[in-house]
Amino acid sequence: MDQQELFVKMAVHAWNVQIGRAEKMFNAFSDDDFYREIAPGKNRIIYLYGHLIAIHDAIKDILVLGDRRHADMDDPYIKKPEDKSLTVPSLAEMKQYWAEVHAELAALFQALPAAEWFTRHKAMSDEDFVKDPSRNKLSVLMNRTSHVAYHLGQIVLVKPNS
Amino acid sequence: MDQQELFVKMAVHAWNVQIGRAEKMFNAFSDDDFYREIAPGKNRIIYLYGHLIAIHDAIKDILVLGDRRHADMDDPYIKKPEDKSLTVPSLAEMKQYWAEVHAELAALFQALPAAEWFTRHKAMSDEDFVKDPSRNKLSVLMNRTSHVAYHLGQIVLVKPNS
Repeated sequence: MDQQELFVKMAVHAWNVQIGRAEKMFNAFSDDDFYREIAPGKNRIIYLYGHLIAIHDAIKDILVLGDRRHADMDDPYIKKPEDKSLTVPSLAEMKQYWAEVHAELAALFQALPAAEWFTRHKAMSDEDFVKDPSRNKLSVLMNRTSHVAYHLGQIVLVKPNS
Repeated sequence: MDQQELFVKMAVHAWNVQIGRAEKMFNAFSDDDFYREIAPGKNRIIYLYGHLIAIHDAIKDILVLGDRRHADMDDPYIKKPEDKSLTVPSLAEMKQYWAEVHAELAALFQALPAAEWFTRHKAMSDEDFVKDPSRNKLSVLMNRTSHVAYHLGQIVLVKPNS
Protein backbone atom coordinates (compact mmCIF):
# COMPACT_ATOMS: atom_id res chain seq x y z
CA MET A 1 0.00 0.00 0.00
CA ASP A 2 1.48 3.36 -0.99
CA GLN A 3 1.20 6.46 1.14
CA GLN A 4 -1.77 7.92 -0.67
CA GLU A 5 -3.65 4.64 -0.39
CA LEU A 6 -2.85 4.47 3.31
CA PHE A 7 -4.17 7.95 3.99
CA VAL A 8 -7.31 7.38 1.91
CA LYS A 9 -7.90 4.19 3.86
CA MET A 10 -7.61 6.12 7.14
CA ALA A 11 -9.99 8.88 6.08
CA VAL A 12 -12.57 6.51 4.56
CA HIS A 13 -12.37 4.35 7.70
CA ALA A 14 -13.03 7.42 9.89
CA TRP A 15 -16.07 8.23 7.73
CA ASN A 16 -17.33 4.63 7.90
CA VAL A 17 -17.01 4.64 11.70
CA GLN A 18 -19.27 7.68 12.01
CA ILE A 19 -21.80 6.40 9.45
CA GLY A 20 -21.87 3.06 11.25
CA ARG A 21 -22.57 4.82 14.55
CA ALA A 22 -25.27 6.94 12.92
CA GLU A 23 -26.99 3.88 11.48
CA LYS A 24 -26.85 2.09 14.80
CA MET A 25 -28.52 5.06 16.51
CA PHE A 26 -31.18 5.60 13.84
CA ASN A 27 -31.97 1.88 13.64
CA ALA A 28 -32.64 1.81 17.39
CA PHE A 29 -35.36 4.47 17.05
CA SER A 30 -39.05 3.66 16.69
CA ASP A 31 -40.89 5.74 14.09
CA ASP A 32 -42.26 7.86 16.94
CA ASP A 33 -38.74 8.52 18.22
CA PHE A 34 -37.92 10.30 14.95
CA TYR A 35 -40.45 12.99 15.90
CA ARG A 36 -38.86 13.70 19.30
CA GLU A 37 -36.73 16.80 19.93
CA ILE A 38 -33.08 16.39 20.95
CA ALA A 39 -33.78 19.00 23.68
CA PRO A 40 -36.81 21.21 24.40
CA GLY A 41 -37.41 23.57 21.48
CA LYS A 42 -34.50 22.15 19.45
CA ASN A 43 -34.44 20.07 16.26
CA ARG A 44 -36.22 16.75 16.05
CA ILE A 45 -34.41 13.57 15.03
CA ILE A 46 -36.26 13.55 11.71
CA TYR A 47 -34.79 16.93 10.80
CA LEU A 48 -31.24 15.79 11.57
CA TYR A 49 -31.92 12.63 9.57
CA GLY A 50 -33.01 14.67 6.55
CA HIS A 51 -30.12 17.09 7.11
CA LEU A 52 -27.52 14.32 7.00
CA ILE A 53 -29.16 12.75 3.91
CA ALA A 54 -29.09 16.10 2.08
CA ILE A 55 -25.49 16.94 3.10
CA HIS A 56 -24.27 13.45 2.17
CA ASP A 57 -26.19 13.42 -1.11
CA ALA A 58 -24.35 16.66 -1.96
CA ILE A 59 -20.95 14.99 -1.43
CA LYS A 60 -21.39 13.28 -4.81
CA ASP A 61 -21.70 16.66 -6.45
CA ILE A 62 -18.82 18.39 -4.65
CA LEU A 63 -16.50 15.45 -5.36
CA VAL A 64 -17.67 15.44 -9.01
CA LEU A 65 -18.75 11.80 -8.74
CA GLY A 66 -22.16 12.13 -10.33
CA ASP A 67 -25.51 13.87 -10.16
CA ARG A 68 -27.37 14.30 -6.93
CA ARG A 69 -30.61 12.53 -6.13
CA HIS A 70 -32.13 14.86 -3.55
CA ALA A 71 -31.22 18.48 -4.32
CA ASP A 72 -34.81 19.37 -3.38
CA MET A 73 -33.96 18.53 0.25
CA ASP A 74 -31.36 21.33 0.51
CA ASP A 75 -33.91 24.04 1.07
CA PRO A 76 -35.92 22.42 3.91
CA TYR A 77 -33.05 20.43 5.48
CA ILE A 78 -29.93 22.59 5.01
CA LYS A 79 -30.84 26.19 4.24
CA LYS A 80 -33.89 26.55 6.47
CA PRO A 81 -34.41 25.73 10.15
CA GLU A 82 -36.81 22.91 10.90
CA ASP A 83 -40.40 23.34 9.77
CA LYS A 84 -42.28 20.97 12.06
CA SER A 85 -45.33 20.93 9.78
CA LEU A 86 -43.28 19.41 6.94
CA THR A 87 -44.50 15.95 5.87
CA VAL A 88 -42.50 15.44 2.65
CA PRO A 89 -40.49 13.32 2.19
CA SER A 90 -42.11 10.80 4.52
CA LEU A 91 -40.03 8.94 7.11
CA ALA A 92 -40.35 5.74 5.03
CA GLU A 93 -39.02 7.58 1.98
CA MET A 94 -36.18 9.06 3.99
CA LYS A 95 -35.16 5.64 5.26
CA GLN A 96 -34.90 4.51 1.66
CA TYR A 97 -32.95 7.65 0.70
CA TRP A 98 -30.52 7.14 3.58
CA ALA A 99 -29.81 3.57 2.49
CA GLU A 100 -29.39 4.51 -1.18
CA VAL A 101 -27.21 7.57 -0.61
CA HIS A 102 -24.81 5.76 1.73
CA ALA A 103 -24.64 2.57 -0.33
CA GLU A 104 -23.85 4.64 -3.41
CA LEU A 105 -21.18 6.67 -1.61
CA ALA A 106 -19.59 3.50 -0.25
CA ALA A 107 -19.34 2.09 -3.80
CA LEU A 108 -18.03 5.36 -5.24
CA PHE A 109 -15.43 5.75 -2.47
CA GLN A 110 -14.25 2.19 -2.97
CA ALA A 111 -13.88 2.70 -6.73
CA LEU A 112 -12.13 6.08 -6.59
CA PRO A 113 -8.37 5.72 -7.21
CA ALA A 114 -6.32 7.07 -4.28
CA ALA A 115 -4.67 9.75 -6.42
CA GLU A 116 -8.11 11.13 -7.36
CA TRP A 117 -8.84 11.94 -3.72
CA PHE A 118 -5.95 14.39 -3.83
CA THR A 119 -7.35 16.39 -6.72
CA ARG A 120 -9.37 19.56 -6.25
CA HIS A 121 -13.04 19.47 -5.31
CA LYS A 122 -15.75 21.34 -7.22
CA ALA A 123 -15.81 24.42 -4.99
CA MET A 124 -12.07 25.12 -5.48
CA SER A 125 -10.66 26.96 -8.50
CA ASP A 126 -7.53 25.56 -10.19
CA GLU A 127 -5.69 28.69 -9.12
CA ASP A 128 -6.59 28.37 -5.43
CA PHE A 129 -5.81 24.66 -5.50
CA VAL A 130 -2.26 25.30 -6.72
CA LYS A 131 -1.77 27.58 -3.70
CA ASP A 132 -3.24 25.08 -1.25
CA PRO A 133 -3.29 21.42 -2.35
CA SER A 134 -4.56 20.37 1.09
CA ARG A 135 -8.02 21.56 0.03
CA ASN A 136 -8.65 18.41 -1.98
CA LYS A 137 -11.47 15.89 -2.20
CA LEU A 138 -10.25 13.98 0.82
CA SER A 139 -10.44 17.15 2.93
CA VAL A 140 -14.15 17.33 2.05
CA LEU A 141 -14.63 13.80 3.35
CA MET A 142 -12.73 14.61 6.57
CA ASN A 143 -14.85 17.71 7.08
CA ARG A 144 -18.08 15.76 6.53
CA THR A 145 -16.87 13.11 8.98
CA SER A 146 -16.61 15.73 11.75
CA HIS A 147 -20.01 17.05 10.68
CA VAL A 148 -21.66 13.65 11.21
CA ALA A 149 -19.97 13.34 14.61
CA TYR A 150 -21.27 16.81 15.59
CA HIS A 151 -24.87 15.76 14.97
CA LEU A 152 -24.41 12.30 16.56
CA GLY A 153 -23.58 14.16 19.77
CA GLN A 154 -27.10 15.59 19.53
CA ILE A 155 -28.92 12.48 18.33
CA VAL A 156 -27.55 10.46 21.26
CA LEU A 157 -29.50 12.74 23.63
CA VAL A 158 -32.72 10.99 22.60
CA LYS A 159 -32.91 7.59 24.25
CA PRO A 160 -34.90 5.13 22.13
CA ASN A 161 -38.27 4.18 23.59
CA SER A 162 -38.46 0.44 23.87
CA MET B 1 5.67 19.47 0.47
CA ASP B 2 5.82 15.67 0.26
CA GLN B 3 2.77 13.46 0.58
CA GLN B 4 3.20 12.67 4.26
CA GLU B 5 3.55 16.36 5.05
CA LEU B 6 0.40 17.07 3.07
CA PHE B 7 -1.63 14.45 5.00
CA VAL B 8 -0.33 15.71 8.33
CA LYS B 9 -1.20 19.26 7.37
CA MET B 10 -4.76 18.16 6.48
CA ALA B 11 -5.31 16.23 9.69
CA VAL B 12 -3.77 18.89 11.96
CA HIS B 13 -5.83 21.53 10.17
CA ALA B 14 -9.02 19.51 10.80
CA TRP B 15 -8.08 19.28 14.49
CA ASN B 16 -7.33 23.01 14.69
CA VAL B 17 -10.69 23.84 13.14
CA GLN B 18 -12.54 21.90 15.85
CA ILE B 19 -10.41 23.29 18.68
CA GLY B 20 -10.93 26.81 17.32
CA ARG B 21 -14.70 26.25 17.30
CA ALA B 22 -14.58 24.84 20.82
CA GLU B 23 -12.65 27.84 22.12
CA LYS B 24 -15.03 30.25 20.43
CA MET B 25 -17.99 28.53 22.12
CA PHE B 26 -16.39 28.28 25.57
CA ASN B 27 -15.14 31.88 25.42
CA ALA B 28 -18.68 33.09 24.78
CA PHE B 29 -19.93 31.52 28.01
CA SER B 30 -20.23 33.39 31.31
CA ASP B 31 -19.01 31.51 34.36
CA ASP B 32 -22.66 30.74 35.18
CA ASP B 33 -23.19 29.26 31.71
CA PHE B 34 -20.62 26.56 32.51
CA TYR B 35 -23.01 25.21 35.14
CA ARG B 36 -25.95 24.88 32.74
CA GLU B 37 -27.05 21.50 31.35
CA ILE B 38 -26.97 20.89 27.60
CA ALA B 39 -30.50 19.44 27.98
CA PRO B 40 -32.64 18.64 31.03
CA GLY B 41 -30.92 15.97 33.14
CA LYS B 42 -27.89 15.78 30.81
CA ASN B 43 -24.27 16.85 31.30
CA ARG B 44 -23.39 20.41 32.19
CA ILE B 45 -20.96 22.44 30.07
CA ILE B 46 -18.37 22.25 32.87
CA TYR B 47 -18.34 18.46 32.66
CA LEU B 48 -17.81 18.48 28.89
CA TYR B 49 -15.07 21.09 29.40
CA GLY B 50 -13.28 18.85 31.89
CA HIS B 51 -13.92 15.81 29.68
CA LEU B 52 -12.24 17.43 26.66
CA ILE B 53 -9.31 18.63 28.80
CA ALA B 54 -8.77 15.11 30.16
CA ILE B 55 -9.09 13.39 26.76
CA HIS B 56 -6.77 15.91 25.10
CA ASP B 57 -4.25 15.77 27.93
CA ALA B 58 -4.13 12.01 27.33
CA ILE B 59 -3.23 12.52 23.65
CA LYS B 60 0.32 13.38 24.75
CA ASP B 61 0.59 9.99 26.40
CA ILE B 62 -0.94 7.90 23.61
CA LEU B 63 1.27 9.63 21.02
CA VAL B 64 4.30 9.11 23.29
CA LEU B 65 5.05 12.84 23.29
CA GLY B 66 5.53 13.30 27.01
CA ASP B 67 3.99 12.89 30.44
CA ARG B 68 0.45 13.92 31.16
CA ARG B 69 -0.45 16.83 33.41
CA HIS B 70 -3.95 15.85 34.52
CA ALA B 71 -4.26 12.08 34.82
CA ASP B 72 -6.29 12.71 37.99
CA MET B 73 -9.09 14.08 35.81
CA ASP B 74 -9.66 10.74 34.05
CA ASP B 75 -11.69 9.28 36.85
CA PRO B 76 -14.21 12.14 37.33
CA TYR B 77 -14.28 13.35 33.71
CA ILE B 78 -13.84 10.24 31.56
CA LYS B 79 -14.57 7.09 33.53
CA LYS B 80 -17.46 8.35 35.65
CA PRO B 81 -20.64 10.17 34.71
CA GLU B 82 -20.96 13.73 35.93
CA ASP B 83 -20.94 14.28 39.69
CA LYS B 84 -22.66 17.63 40.04
CA SER B 85 -21.31 18.12 43.56
CA LEU B 86 -17.73 18.11 42.28
CA THR B 87 -15.88 21.40 42.88
CA VAL B 88 -12.31 20.37 42.02
CA PRO B 89 -10.68 21.51 39.83
CA SER B 90 -12.33 24.92 39.89
CA LEU B 91 -13.55 26.55 36.70
CA ALA B 92 -10.66 29.05 36.88
CA GLU B 93 -8.17 26.16 37.13
CA MET B 94 -9.82 24.35 34.26
CA LYS B 95 -9.57 27.44 32.05
CA GLN B 96 -5.85 27.49 32.75
CA TYR B 97 -5.57 23.75 32.06
CA TRP B 98 -7.43 24.10 28.76
CA ALA B 99 -5.06 26.84 27.60
CA GLU B 100 -1.95 24.93 28.69
CA VAL B 101 -2.96 21.55 27.25
CA HIS B 102 -3.90 22.97 23.84
CA ALA B 103 -0.90 25.30 23.60
CA GLU B 104 1.38 22.40 24.42
CA LEU B 105 -0.30 20.09 21.88
CA ALA B 106 -0.06 22.79 19.19
CA ALA B 107 3.68 23.11 19.82
CA LEU B 108 4.20 19.33 19.91
CA PHE B 109 2.18 18.78 16.73
CA GLN B 110 4.12 21.51 14.93
CA ALA B 111 7.45 19.98 15.98
CA LEU B 112 6.62 16.34 15.17
CA PRO B 113 8.22 15.25 11.86
CA ALA B 114 5.61 14.08 9.36
CA ALA B 115 7.02 10.55 9.22
CA GLU B 116 6.57 10.21 13.00
CA TRP B 117 2.80 10.63 12.65
CA PHE B 118 2.76 7.41 10.63
CA THR B 119 4.37 5.35 13.38
CA ARG B 120 2.38 3.28 15.85
CA HIS B 121 0.68 4.82 18.84
CA LYS B 122 1.12 3.57 22.39
CA ALA B 123 -1.96 1.35 22.49
CA MET B 124 -0.83 -0.67 19.42
CA SER B 125 1.62 -3.56 19.60
CA ASP B 126 4.38 -3.76 16.97
CA GLU B 127 2.80 -6.96 15.71
CA ASP B 128 -0.67 -5.45 15.23
CA PHE B 129 0.85 -2.39 13.63
CA VAL B 130 2.59 -4.46 10.97
CA LYS B 131 -0.79 -5.96 10.09
CA ASP B 132 -2.55 -2.60 9.98
CA PRO B 133 -0.31 0.48 9.50
CA SER B 134 -3.39 2.70 9.23
CA ARG B 135 -3.67 2.56 13.04
CA ASN B 136 -0.93 5.13 13.49
CA LYS B 137 -0.56 8.34 15.50
CA LEU B 138 -2.35 10.40 12.88
CA SER B 139 -5.38 8.11 13.17
CA VAL B 140 -5.54 8.97 16.87
CA LEU B 141 -5.64 12.67 16.01
CA MET B 142 -8.38 12.08 13.42
CA ASN B 143 -10.39 10.10 15.94
CA ARG B 144 -10.03 12.82 18.58
CA THR B 145 -11.07 15.43 16.01
CA SER B 146 -14.40 13.65 15.50
CA HIS B 147 -14.70 13.33 19.28
CA VAL B 148 -14.43 17.11 19.77
CA ALA B 149 -17.02 17.66 17.03
CA TYR B 150 -19.38 15.20 18.74
CA HIS B 151 -19.34 17.22 21.96
CA LEU B 152 -19.50 20.58 20.16
CA GLY B 153 -22.85 19.42 18.79
CA GLN B 154 -23.96 19.25 22.43
CA ILE B 155 -22.25 22.39 23.71
CA VAL B 156 -23.91 24.49 20.98
CA LEU B 157 -27.30 23.65 22.54
CA VAL B 158 -26.54 26.08 25.39
CA LYS B 159 -26.96 29.64 24.17
CA PRO B 160 -24.66 32.02 26.08
CA ASN B 161 -26.49 34.39 28.41
CA SER B 162 -25.53 37.93 27.54
